[in-house]
Amino acid sequence: MSYRMTTRTTGALRRLAIVAIALGAAAVGPAAARPAVAQTVGATEQAAAQEVGAEWAIAVHGGAGTARRESMTPELESRYAAALTAALEVGGEILASGGSSLDAVEAALRLLEDSPLFNAGKGAVFTHDGRNELDASIMDGASLAAGAVAAVHHVKNPISLARRVMEASPHVMMAGVGAEEFALEQGIELVPATYFFTESRWQSLQRAREAERRADAEPVGALGDRLGTVGAVALDRHGNLAAGTTTGGMTNKRFGRIGDSPIIGAGTYADNRACAVSGTGHGEFFMRNAVAHDICARVLYLEESIGEAADAVVMGVLVEQGGDGGVIAMDPEGVIAMPFNTPSMLRGYLTSEEGPVVEIFRE
Amino acid sequence: MSYRMTTRTTGALRRLAIVAIALGAAAVGPAAARPAVAQTVGATEQAAAQEVGAEWAIAVHGGAGTARRESMTPELESRYAAALTAALEVGGEILASGGSSLDAVEAALRLLEDSPLFNAGKGAVFTHDGRNELDASIMDGASLAAGAVAAVHHVKNPISLARRVMEASPHVMMAGVGAEEFALEQGIELVPATYFFTESRWQSLQRAREAERRADAEPVGALGDRLGTVGAVALDRHGNLAAGTTTGGMTNKRFGRIGDSPIIGAGTYADNRACAVSGTGHGEFFMRNAVAHDICARVLYLEESIGEAADAVVMGVLVEQGGDGGVIAMDPEGVIAMPFNTPSMLRGYLTSEEGPVVEIFRE
Repeated sequence: MSYRMTTRTTGALRRLAIVAIALGAAAVGPAAARPAVAQTVGATEQAAAQEVGAEWAIAVHGGAGTARRESMTPELESRYAAALTAALEVGGEILASGGSSLDAVEAALRLLEDSPLFNAGKGAVFTHDGRNELDASIMDGASLAAGAVAAVHHVKNPISLARRVMEASPHVMMAGVGAEEFALEQGIELVPATYFFTESRWQSLQRAREAERRADAEPVGALGDRLGTVGAVALDRHGNLAAGTTTGGMTNKRFGRIGDSPIIGAGTYADNRACAVSGTGHGEFFMRNAVAHDICARVLYLEESIGEAADAVVMGVLVEQGGDGGVIAMDPEGVIAMPFNTPSMLRGYLTSEEGPVVEIFRE
Repeated sequence: MSYRMTTRTTGALRRLAIVAIALGAAAVGPAAARPAVAQTVGATEQAAAQEVGAEWAIAVHGGAGTARRESMTPELESRYAAALTAALEVGGEILASGGSSLDAVEAALRLLEDSPLFNAGKGAVFTHDGRNELDASIMDGASLAAGAVAAVHHVKNPISLARRVMEASPHVMMAGVGAEEFALEQGIELVPATYFFTESRWQSLQRAREAERRADAEPVGALGDRLGTVGAVALDRHGNLAAGTTTGGMTNKRFGRIGDSPIIGAGTYADNRACAVSGTGHGEFFMRNAVAHDICARVLYLEESIGEAADAVVMGVLVEQGGDGGVIAMDPEGVIAMPFNTPSMLRGYLTSEEGPVVEIFRE
């Protein structure tokens, strides 16, 4: 189901397609003769990649997952759609008024962190020990500055702490109690661990632990529990790209596992020359393939369009390896690609030309 | 000073140069007409990049640093050289007898971790809180499998724990007490924190804290304290590349800072199609630029030689940004590049054709 909200929708779909093809082709060099959009859609078939070009643009994801249309209620669908739309609109308002892509990404992700619906912030899943362990990262495509936090337990908005690491410390990544010490020094809001309790996530942990006791087969959470990360990419009127990702990790995870979300180059990357990317899915595959950086490298070095590059990695490399997930990716012209190889990915975009458009399943 | 040990040195330098040019050129595609070695040396001038091709090969580094020849005693020089030579020979013995590049990398790095000379394992520097906080990662170029550990305090050989994460868990990265829980379950050797005490590192911390009290200017350790990571790359007779990196981090570091060494794509990457890379230097710059993955991407996508790619990143991108450090990099033909933009980098190589050769300063 596609939620095309009326508030900001401007152009007709036909016009959008023309803009997309024009800008998509403009973004590629040697491959300019090939129609980028048709190429992308043809290559992925069901990838549901959108490509639009714009003065400013924001895209968000609420996680790639195994949800199928028949298993989701209309009520839950509209709650997800409303949350993603609100995130797009808070980011879009910043971008429309000339604000920075970093501000838009952070604001959109704070809103999703504050929702219990997503596996990030408030809605974070539980670890094996019954804790909530949060990771996040953010990157500025203009300067390549980046910030990341891993394994924090009391930070209400990890994306804001990641940004503070980027802007107020000489470091890129902080973890654990040290990161919370920095949060305290910086006046970043800490909350008691009980803030992150949600009944549905707690029940997920109980089910995962029960399954573990019965089967002893998959001790680290079932596939569905690995997915649900939240991310955003944006282009502002100044031509600057930014990307951010924030997650509660995997249900029933053990051993201080860190996934791709706080890893610059794996779950998040932004470079004004090429792209902004945020990933969601089976993080280990994103790390081994440096997915976010690889998509940017393909754009920069192979001169692939953002759609071609994102498809090559998500529908090619990851599928070959059995790595479930998807990405949202944006190029310096505001062209957006959102391929995923899972049954669903919560996703949406809003640009100076179009939107907000929010989708959950394949069309 | 160049230490050419007699035990295994076979070919004359002239023969080596011929092999290097032949294999270096063979490794590039469209650029095959250009002489890869001359190109590299010309581009970097003082980069001290070596390029050799071989049936098997191992290279190690003991950190890029600010040491200048006049400040180092001959006695200390020969201690470093002896340790690096021993690491090369333990790895080389494995490779010569048909063992795997992963085994060679792990064995070489365990030896350097056990030495008090290097900032890894036994010789790890102290954090602001007077603890030793260790990071490591390893990657298998054949499968893209990878393992990493961050912020462990009681693991004698973090490189071996990283390998266990890769081989005995579904994860890529574990951190903190969770990683040590995994180490206990796996029978990886833990040691009391006092094992890591060395007087010289303790004095470094005292000096750093004293400087901090006086100046309040650089609260996170001086440049010299950021450098000293240990790494290895290897090619085995089966054509498989591997890379590993292990470090004690930064003197006087705070806030659970994690650097590039345990980040797949930043400090370590290996891909049989392109390269194996281990980095050393100012880790934040290596993370922002995804240095190890970027070198591999340049080889794979731009068809640069390993020397051209390593130079472009270390002597180009990093120098432009003010990021101090160096890398050891190896391609699937055993061609080695070891550029660094610091006054010194402890480094050496041993191949089926040549070595061990160990060097500290620029020639």
